[in-house]
Amino acid sequence: MTNAELTQFKTRYVKNLEESVIPFWEKYSIDREAGGYLTCLERDGRLFDADKFTWLGARELWMWSKLYTSYRREPRWVDLAQTGADFLKRYGRDPRGDWYFALDRQGRPLVEAYNIFSDCFAAVAFAEYHRATGDRESLEIALATYRRIQERKSNPKGRFTKQIGSTRSLKAMALPMIQIWMAEEMGDLLEPGLREAVVRENIDQVTSLHIDRERRAVFERVAADGSHPFCMEGRLLTPGHALEVLWFLLRTVSRRSRSAGLAAGKAGAANTTGAAEGGAAAADDAALIELLTEAVLFTAERGWDHEQGGFFYYMDYEGLPPDKLEWDMKLWWVHAEALCAFLISYQLTGRSEFLEWFRRTDDYVFSHFDDPEYGEWFGYLHRGGDAALTLKGGKWKGFFHVPRALLTCIGVFDELAAAAGGPPPEHSQHDGAKERHHG
Amino acid sequence: MTNAELTQFKTRYVKNLEESVIPFWEKYSIDREAGGYLTCLERDGRLFDADKFTWLGARELWMWSKLYTSYRREPRWVDLAQTGADFLKRYGRDPRGDWYFALDRQGRPLVEAYNIFSDCFAAVAFAEYHRATGDRESLEIALATYRRIQERKSNPKGRFTKQIGSTRSLKAMALPMIQIWMAEEMGDLLEPGLREAVVRENIDQVTSLHIDRERRAVFERVAADGSHPFCMEGRLLTPGHALEVLWFLLRTVSRRSRSAGLAAGKAGAANTTGAAEGGAAAADDAALIELLTEAVLFTAERGWDHEQGGFFYYMDYEGLPPDKLEWDMKLWWVHAEALCAFLISYQLTGRSEFLEWFRRTDDYVFSHFDDPEYGEWFGYLHRGGDAALTLKGGKWKGFFHVPRALLTCIGVFDELAAAAGGPPPEHSQHDGAKERHHG
Repeated sequence: MTNAELTQFKTRYVKNLEESVIPFWEKYSIDREAGGYLTCLERDGRLFDADKFTWLGARELWMWSKLYTSYRREPRWVDLAQTGADFLKRYGRDPRGDWYFALDRQGRPLVEAYNIFSDCFAAVAFAEYHRATGDRESLEIALATYRRIQERKSNPKGRFTKQIGSTRSLKAMALPMIQIWMAEEMGDLLEPGLREAVVRENIDQVTSLHIDRERRAVFERVAADGSHPFCMEGRLLTPGHALEVLWFLLRTVSRRSRSAGLAAGKAGAANTTGAAEGGAAAADDAALIELLTEAVLFTAERGWDHEQGGFFYYMDYEGLPPDKLEWDMKLWWVHAEALCAFLISYQLTGRSEFLEWFRRTDDYVFSHFDDPEYGEWFGYLHRGGDAALTLKGGKWKGFFHVPRALLTCIGVFDELAAAAGGPPPEHSQHDGAKERHHG
Repeated sequence: MTNAELTQFKTRYVKNLEESVIPFWEKYSIDREAGGYLTCLERDGRLFDADKFTWLGARELWMWSKLYTSYRREPRWVDLAQTGADFLKRYGRDPRGDWYFALDRQGRPLVEAYNIFSDCFAAVAFAEYHRATGDRESLEIALATYRRIQERKSNPKGRFTKQIGSTRSLKAMALPMIQIWMAEEMGDLLEPGLREAVVRENIDQVTSLHIDRERRAVFERVAADGSHPFCMEGRLLTPGHALEVLWFLLRTVSRRSRSAGLAAGKAGAANTTGAAEGGAAAADDAALIELLTEAVLFTAERGWDHEQGGFFYYMDYEGLPPDKLEWDMKLWWVHAEALCAFLISYQLTGRSEFLEWFRRTDDYVFSHFDDPEYGEWFGYLHRGGDAALTLKGGKWKGFFHVPRALLTCIGVFDELAAAAGGPPPEHSQHDGAKERHHG
């Protein structure tokens, strides 16, 4: 990528984040009456439902905190985080300490804590809010929630489990994904060694079960022996989810490699065995990066709609009918995750295919999802690219994927510029601290 | 409707039922290896998943039985019913007698009995199979299942209930709908008086809560006081579901009126009080028919896609974003139910608007859903009318809505011809017994 292109991209991403996305959520999502966040917002910011979805509230709390800790120390953002933290502390948990799925505007519980995903976002959100503010209670909430997730993770839906596992037990990719993300986000707040143990175990599941190099596909659900049973869920591919997992793993492996490199450097100064071990680990990680970026590439090729542009939401590996009516719709988060996956793959390999995929996705995003008129991105497009729903936020879309992707990409733009030996690209609005995804 | 048009319609419906729909399911859905029915069938009948969904299995059992009891005494259809009945008897129920949601091909349970809807279809299916065959065990299963539904109906999802009802309790239209349909289908198999009591109570809920004459809409969920809370589910409209409920109610009211008329006729011969009561009930039922057909009309006007044709799947009463990505898709069952609602409304009122709506829907169905190449109807179209999924059956589409609608319409065509004083319209392939929807 030339410096000129790097500057052009960075300018666009900073502008989108600071002039379109952040202002939209700051203006419309803050509930100045009842506290917390409103997420059901029409194209122009008009509220269409006042229910509060705990996991979206936790994601928004995480995002404001992360912007503050990683992008710019803007005091306003801590205040915006605080309204979410206060509301969730007060109303978010049931008597067991599990996080409800939904509350009404005043915080009265509407929907039970029916799986552990609200809890996962609550744990990372309060960890980041603790980093932003030093608030001790938030740290305790984060750690208590994290411990409770570990107790519940073997049965993430508890009494709400409908599947009778003994007949057909499939491993789902959602669990290793969230485990890795949580471990990376909680990071130094966890007991020593825990992060690396969680990361290792879950990378193993993804690389040995879900990524199928021979079939050139990342399967959402796989039998414990790695086979693909003849059923819809056994053939299900979700390109956006695969790309999200892959960039998490790429980030994690490169973070781990850097730590190992530093450790090996130190060890090498003392004895050569340590250096050799470090070298072997580095070779393993290089092979892992090779596998993961290969998977990014075959996921992109298979997931892209070569007729009408954009990535499909769901696909069937055999091209049989998927079990989802919305399979061919184009969703904002899929494309946000794709941007991160391609840019990070390019950063780690330097291969031009990834830059091409990044350019193609960026072009699709800014000509279809971005709404220059009212700010933020549209969420749900028909296959052809027009908006199927005009909302900017809802029960499933909040202040999360878009700003996280913009922040991640801006950080990589800066790293690419630094690696090229130059200063950060122009138009940088922030203080030069690169986005540290892993807290 | 002229006799020529009546004949034309009837010819098309008989041909579609007998040469397209029945052959497709007879050829592809019968599992000659493991018994029971396969429903995940591609456009050309190819199997894409062998799981067995109990409620679809029960619907198919009902349908073969119903064809036999109401359309033609074709021995083959009893055999096809038997394979479903045997499989469901053997594998369908959990140890409490509740019906699993899904089984694998061999009948091993995959998904728990997570609500009562599988049970509702099992009850009517075994009732009809009993009528077709005289099988006592099936009658016992039907009645035991019916009793169990009555125990469970105040909490239809049992331990799977995620909603915390005390915060926002909404009445859903699905429950009165299925109660009325079940009571009408079970009919004379229930204890005396039960059918009329169930019908009365549930018609009351639909007419007093869900049909909102002032707002000219049928609401899917309403607060117990009839108000519409400010939330997505409080504004949800599902035109297909509304039309389905409305034609059930129209059928029920006209069946009840006929019985009352007969009773009043007898009573009138003995004393005049009975005749006066009969007259008052008849006036009430006439008012009910007026209300229900008015609701058919405003549902049609609101639910039709005036730009691209066909009925929307979901809508928001205020035109705000609905909570469903697939809201603007065109679904087969919506249009099957619409055909019945318009034709029955026309039959009961003679008003030309209903005939117009019937013609319009018929035209849409036979130019978009019907697949002359491989038989059966497509299930899921994009807003513009092209197939989003090419499947003919799946997890939610089986041998049910299409043949039921064709059978219902053929019955009405015959009744219209009889009312006009003529013989049944030409091209009748069956024995002239009209379709008796209520068993």
